[in-house]
Amino acid sequence: MTPKAFHAMSYGVYIVSTWDNGRPTGCTANCAAQITSSPATVMVSINKDNHTNRCIADCGYFAISVLSEKTDPSVIGTFGFRSGKDFDKFSAVPYAVLGKLPVVTDACAYIVCKVVKTMDTSTHTVFLGEVTDADVLSDDPPMTYAYYHTVIKGKTAKNAPTYIAEEAPKDKYVCSVCGYVYEGAIPFAELPEDWSCPVCGRPKSVFRKTP
Amino acid sequence: MTPKAFHAMSYGVYIVSTWDNGRPTGCTANCAAQITSSPATVMVSINKDNHTNRCIADCGYFAISVLSEKTDPSVIGTFGFRSGKDFDKFSAVPYAVLGKLPVVTDACAYIVCKVVKTMDTSTHTVFLGEVTDADVLSDDPPMTYAYYHTVIKGKTAKNAPTYIAEEAPKDKYVCSVCGYVYEGAIPFAELPEDWSCPVCGRPKSVFRKTP
Repeated sequence: MTPKAFHAMSYGVYIVSTWDNGRPTGCTANCAAQITSSPATVMVSINKDNHTNRCIADCGYFAISVLSEKTDPSVIGTFGFRSGKDFDKFSAVPYAVLGKLPVVTDACAYIVCKVVKTMDTSTHTVFLGEVTDADVLSDDPPMTYAYYHTVIKGKTAKNAPTYIAEEAPKDKYVCSVCGYVYEGAIPFAELPEDWSCPVCGRPKSVFRKTP
Repeated sequence: MTPKAFHAMSYGVYIVSTWDNGRPTGCTANCAAQITSSPATVMVSINKDNHTNRCIADCGYFAISVLSEKTDPSVIGTFGFRSGKDFDKFSAVPYAVLGKLPVVTDACAYIVCKVVKTMDTSTHTVFLGEVTDADVLSDDPPMTYAYYHTVIKGKTAKNAPTYIAEEAPKDKYVCSVCGYVYEGAIPFAELPEDWSCPVCGRPKSVFRKTP
């Protein structure tokens, strides 16, 4: 078996959100899909270790914010690499309560669902929800998981203010929290001290040099 | 509720296959995803009206062939718009028995699973399978559902042997079986009589002119 085969499957990038006793919470997810059209149902798969999992089970509702290629990449980091148990993720991103659920508005669409069924697996719960509200938020193309891995990294490099021709081999700096690889044109050491990981928002100090 | 919001979700394009009493059968699917990593499990959602659904339930195994951007688009049509009950779909495409299941080899990866759980919904069955075999078949980029809808249509036009500048407004011809829209450079009426739909393989005669 070659697990690399799994990387060929395609996904989107979503924020799955719900209420935690009246406080908005959520997490980044890539596994969400429409299952039936009439009634419209949608599934999401959420790790049981994730605070959002228990909150969805308690609340009985979840929202899916569909991220687009124009969504600020820090949204992914805010929701993906910190626990909503101790940190108010929604304080860091634009959101609105739509269809009675907290929805990230820096997104191209949202879908709100009432949980109608669950499937338990070893590490994840698959929640099947009947759609109670859904709308388009922008015409920007949805972000795929492949786009997140390949293009967002590239864009950071291209957006660096100064271009330096790639002549000398450069050290690579990897975020120890989220795995983001800094490949910008400015040498890592010359980045300002308040520079932070564009994906998870952690400070420059958590980056590690790799050969 | 705006169902157009559902179109923002991202998917791949897959052939889900199994054995029908020793005969290979399968169908096109877009909803497949890895659910857990250890043990590795993968889910697929298959319409209950589909012959493949009953065959997976009977056989207890399914294979996912992950189509790539280079996969011949007629594979999608062969598996997507005909019933495997009456037609030997595998007679029309290159395949091999890998991990004991029939796999389409004009693909970039395959995953074979043993069904370990099912979730019943109004129209579809979600099969959760534990992976028993998986491998990469090519380095071609996986085909996304968005690519299928936008680029494959475009490619047909670009691949037309003669280019005619788009000056006069053109009639649109739509395949009445699969919905494929012919937008090639050659006027539809001038296509040879043995021309067939590049997606579902049906003859020119099933196309309908739309305003």
